Amino acid sequence: MEILFTFVPREDQQERVKKAFPEVEFYFLDRDKTRLSSANIIVTYGEDLTAEDIKSAEKVEWIMVASAGIEKLPHKAIEKRGITVSNVKGIHKTPMAESVLAHLLALKRTLPEIYQNQQKHLWNKKMSSSELNGTTALILGPGAIGSEIGRLLQAFGVNTIGCNRSGNQAPNMDEMISLDKILDKLPLADYVISVLPSTQETQQLLGKEHFNAMKQTAIFMNFGRGDLFAETVLLKALQQKEIAFAVLDVFEQEPLPEDHVFWSMNRVVVSPHISSKSGKYVDRTLDIFIPNLKKWLADRSVPTNLVDMEKGY
Amino acid sequence: MEILFTFVPREDQQERVKKAFPEVEFYFLDRDKTRLSSANIIVTYGEDLTAEDIKSAEKVEWIMVASAGIEKLPHKAIEKRGITVSNVKGIHKTPMAESVLAHLLALKRTLPEIYQNQQKHLWNKKMSSSELNGTTALILGPGAIGSEIGRLLQAFGVNTIGCNRSGNQAPNMDEMISLDKILDKLPLADYVISVLPSTQETQQLLGKEHFNAMKQTAIFMNFGRGDLFAETVLLKALQQKEIAFAVLDVFEQEPLPEDHVFWSMNRVVVSPHISSKSGKYVDRTLDIFIPNLKKWLADRSVPTNLVDMEKGY
Repeated sequence: MEILFTFVPREDQQERVKKAFPEVEFYFLDRDKTRLSSANIIVTYGEDLTAEDIKSAEKVEWIMVASAGIEKLPHKAIEKRGITVSNVKGIHKTPMAESVLAHLLALKRTLPEIYQNQQKHLWNKKMSSSELNGTTALILGPGAIGSEIGRLLQAFGVNTIGCNRSGNQAPNMDEMISLDKILDKLPLADYVISVLPSTQETQQLLGKEHFNAMKQTAIFMNFGRGDLFAETVLLKALQQKEIAFAVLDVFEQEPLPEDHVFWSMNRVVVSPHISSKSGKYVDRTLDIFIPNLKKWLADRSVPTNLVDMEKGY
Repeated sequence: MEILFTFVPREDQQERVKKAFPEVEFYFLDRDKTRLSSANIIVTYGEDLTAEDIKSAEKVEWIMVASAGIEKLPHKAIEKRGITVSNVKGIHKTPMAESVLAHLLALKRTLPEIYQNQQKHLWNKKMSSSELNGTTALILGPGAIGSEIGRLLQAFGVNTIGCNRSGNQAPNMDEMISLDKILDKLPLADYVISVLPSTQETQQLLGKEHFNAMKQTAIFMNFGRGDLFAETVLLKALQQKEIAFAVLDVFEQEPLPEDHVFWSMNRVVVSPHISSKSGKYVDRTLDIFIPNLKKWLADRSVPTNLVDMEKGY
């Protein structure tokens, strides 16, 4: 049994898996595909495997993706071979929700202005601070991450409206709506927060009519995927003051090109796709991987967090 | 009956009190003391009354302070006359707690670096983001504001230790200690957050031994009053890396002098005493004032949020 990690965990984390499975051969190789053909299991961030790689990886039966997004995997090649794919859905929820709350609270409590005034040694008490308390958030994609955002927002006294395909109840939402009712609710939301994955249904989901329906004071936050809307549409909505502010962690093209207009807009925050970042990331991945591997080795049990390659999540 | 506001509320707020009490004469006068001698009640932010003013204000029986801190009132002159003093304790809790969480989350999720990199059009994913989740906070002064901070921190999975004079239980604290045990607990805290008022007991409460006892990674936050410690002591603790970071909303001297070293330290955030700021402030003051005034006019009932001028809070 050979297991290939296509990234290199910390020394102590490597020891942890080796110790748990002394009978297994582990390879931790960054951008080195020499062990592909002999690997039985691959653990990857999901951005480094091509259809060609899947062909080479003749023995692979399970790909564990240490990420929530799987849109960069070669879906067809994997499906055809019937390879089991699992991910780490849910482990992003804590850092992601903390990032969303951090950005939102920073804007409400005028932190960017406080930092700027400090640079100028300027004691300026005339700030337009406001409160989260008593406001309304619309959350697109109330899954593990979206529901955690909802839980924290509710603690701050924010009214939460969740929006998914079915409109079926999700945790920590005061109200749920289905996607086809979104235009009715956008005018009520002080914040529109997307944590939607990239699927056929979510790509280009938001058009100019959606930004137009938002409050002029709305803060729009995209922490899902950069293909949710055309950036030109968001740009126009900002320029025409249809919305007040955008906080973006994901983009059509990443890294965001150096000459992109978003960088220099003072009503846009550019975050370089790091909202899920946390020192606890790999440890949490192993917390999921180790028990799954134990069961897999025992009786080829299907791992938790199974991904449906056809649905895309 | 004459009531003097020493600040000028918004037009609609003025209408609100006038409408509630058509029989009362209201004066809303900023830095104009011509109506002092005839006022029966004064509503003030608590920073503009001298002992001389109290002498002039012959008819005053009740001073309502639209603030939590009353240290700038002329205590002796007021006590001698037996004037009733009440404040708006509690109305700061929402904006203050949101400010504390905003600053804390911003540091944990590296917002200052994100903003700085945006100015440089720099896509840098190598951030040392960490999580509130699983950390420990020591809260000095778990009253209305401190307990609200505790409630929000607990929602983020933070272990809360409250510290007051008695060590008696306070809401939303996983543990309570008395002030004389503080040195035992400082080494456990990732954040030390003070919202203590200025009283004889809290002035210069923290000395170098306290900062020395904190974690080297600790974030120290002072959102109470600027006389809690000597700033030279904090400065030394920062320079000697006994603590990692300070977020200060209050100072020994306010406004903070333009040439103060804190302005240019990148491990200090200078906030110009605005953490309690909120558009809802005067409305909430009136929410407390109006029912109190109704009862006062009916039968001279003692207002809620009575202040003990001797204790100082």
